[in-house]
Amino acid sequence: MVNTIEWTPEGVVMIDQTKLPSEETFLVCRDYVEVADAIRRMVIRGAPAIGCAAAMGVAIGVLKADDSELDTRFEEICDTLAATRPTAVNLFWAIDRMRGVYKSLRARGADLSEIRQALVDEACRVLEEDIDSNRALGRYGADLLPASGTVMTHCNAGALATGGYGTALGVIRAAVEAGNSLDVLANETRPFMQGSRLTVWELQQDGIPVTLLTDNMAGHLMQRGRVQAIVVGADRIAANGDVANKIGTYSLAVLARENEIPFYVAAPTTTVDLQLESGAEIPIEERSADEVTQIRGHQIAPLATQVCNPAFDVTPNRYVTAIITEKGVARAPYVAALKALCEGQSVAVEA
Amino acid sequence: MVNTIEWTPEGVVMIDQTKLPSEETFLVCRDYVEVADAIRRMVIRGAPAIGCAAAMGVAIGVLKADDSELDTRFEEICDTLAATRPTAVNLFWAIDRMRGVYKSLRARGADLSEIRQALVDEACRVLEEDIDSNRALGRYGADLLPASGTVMTHCNAGALATGGYGTALGVIRAAVEAGNSLDVLANETRPFMQGSRLTVWELQQDGIPVTLLTDNMAGHLMQRGRVQAIVVGADRIAANGDVANKIGTYSLAVLARENEIPFYVAAPTTTVDLQLESGAEIPIEERSADEVTQIRGHQIAPLATQVCNPAFDVTPNRYVTAIITEKGVARAPYVAALKALCEGQSVAVEA
Repeated sequence: MVNTIEWTPEGVVMIDQTKLPSEETFLVCRDYVEVADAIRRMVIRGAPAIGCAAAMGVAIGVLKADDSELDTRFEEICDTLAATRPTAVNLFWAIDRMRGVYKSLRARGADLSEIRQALVDEACRVLEEDIDSNRALGRYGADLLPASGTVMTHCNAGALATGGYGTALGVIRAAVEAGNSLDVLANETRPFMQGSRLTVWELQQDGIPVTLLTDNMAGHLMQRGRVQAIVVGADRIAANGDVANKIGTYSLAVLARENEIPFYVAAPTTTVDLQLESGAEIPIEERSADEVTQIRGHQIAPLATQVCNPAFDVTPNRYVTAIITEKGVARAPYVAALKALCEGQSVAVEA
Repeated sequence: MVNTIEWTPEGVVMIDQTKLPSEETFLVCRDYVEVADAIRRMVIRGAPAIGCAAAMGVAIGVLKADDSELDTRFEEICDTLAATRPTAVNLFWAIDRMRGVYKSLRARGADLSEIRQALVDEACRVLEEDIDSNRALGRYGADLLPASGTVMTHCNAGALATGGYGTALGVIRAAVEAGNSLDVLANETRPFMQGSRLTVWELQQDGIPVTLLTDNMAGHLMQRGRVQAIVVGADRIAANGDVANKIGTYSLAVLARENEIPFYVAAPTTTVDLQLESGAEIPIEERSADEVTQIRGHQIAPLATQVCNPAFDVTPNRYVTAIITEKGVARAPYVAALKALCEGQSVAVEA
């Protein structure tokens, strides 16, 4: 499996997800502004992956900075990276983590070369830990999937959306590794087509059978009994278990409940934002009209069409069967369960 | 407003809906095989419109036929047209109507020229009556829409889907003509993009404000209180009020009920199939994978992607607030209400 993002001597290297699946090209970001731009343009996307990218962005920013007004420069780097996308909390979490390392080193008078090395090391740890988290949550989630059947997923919550392995696709991968006989229904996920472009590509590489459908077919397939479980990722989870995820997730959750299909959210605890009481407080990014009116540069709708393009929606906790994290599985009531998981206490995994 | 389909001395002329909105080109079908091909390729689409096309296809078929084995030839024409698409009942209804005219003329020994003229006249009447039906159902439906607010629609149930004026868009047009202050949310309707390509284009020509969204955004906008009513067309309505319509309709109906938004179906009684007890009996067309993996010839998904492409789904009657026809408005229990409407008795329009 290809690496989503990597720290190299040349800079931060990412596979260009805007070009997949037709081209496998890699972008080398040689300073933090290029990393910020890559996040904004969705060269790299997926909450955990942009957390990793932001951490590496901070590291490369300081690596290229000189000694003058370093604190001011550091905050500029962080602010630029934080301003790229508003919804995924992993971005802010990663920047805060890097800031913590920076501040403690500054506080004890570390020199620039030591700070640089520590930040590079920390960014690489963010990446490694994310992969470890994915594998751990995959194992927890695998137990929830049927021994055989069809699992639907939305967007791409795979290796490409994370440091590697994936959240929703991590759960599916872990179940397949454990011997479950599963096939996947991948919603294409307009407007950016992460499902058709990325999820299908990833699963084909793994040899996991996958069938592509348009987003508006999902309900019909649920109604016809073709879906045994749904697993999606998350961009931010509020303290009460409300889940912000790729646009269309809310609709899937409502349709899942209507058709008595379990609806699972898979995300590392770095995606949980205990500061927010409910999903109503999660900022929803609105992206440009071009994403809807054009596909790969080809105009679909009339010119000057007015467009609505929210990139995420919020699924109220009552539609969520369980939230799968690397520390265990949370079920309603979520306030207590998520708090316990995030604060590191073990939580009983219900049957 | 442009004519969807027209009988001319040169043949059956249709605007090519596969090319809209970027090109306004017209296709002239000079024999019934070309009409059948146009229906199959969705040059013309929408249940009432393909009913009109099928009627004209029968007429032009007989116009070009000679006297030898006319009955056999006639059935060949009908069979070819009937085999184009399976779901919309208007196609079969129109062919049956043409067959009725043909048979009664043959029974009384009419000559070929008289039969030809009668069939051309009948096909033109099918078209005229469809436009009249749309205007009548538009008036009934207009009363159900709010004085002001936002109406969501799916696919294109406009002038382009009918002889003219439209079913769902006919209701919206009639409400706007009556002075309601409405704007429209148009779902793009993957994979064929009838919403972005056709509905937006039609409404822009009328000066009715329209905003385009991808199908997976509909639920989010309902949840956020942005939708006051939903109106869609239909391809076939069973005796019990189950509605087959463009894929994605079922999902909208479930989301509408979840968010307490009225969900209306607008269709002429020619779309009601009293022969079918429930929607479970409605055949659902599966179309080619290319429609999902390519957009206007550009490959989106990996090559050799397995695809699911049902063109329609079935919305159970319990999600349908009312069915608006040219003869009045049917509400649950639909079995009695639809039977009464289709058999021409007047039905009380409930408040």
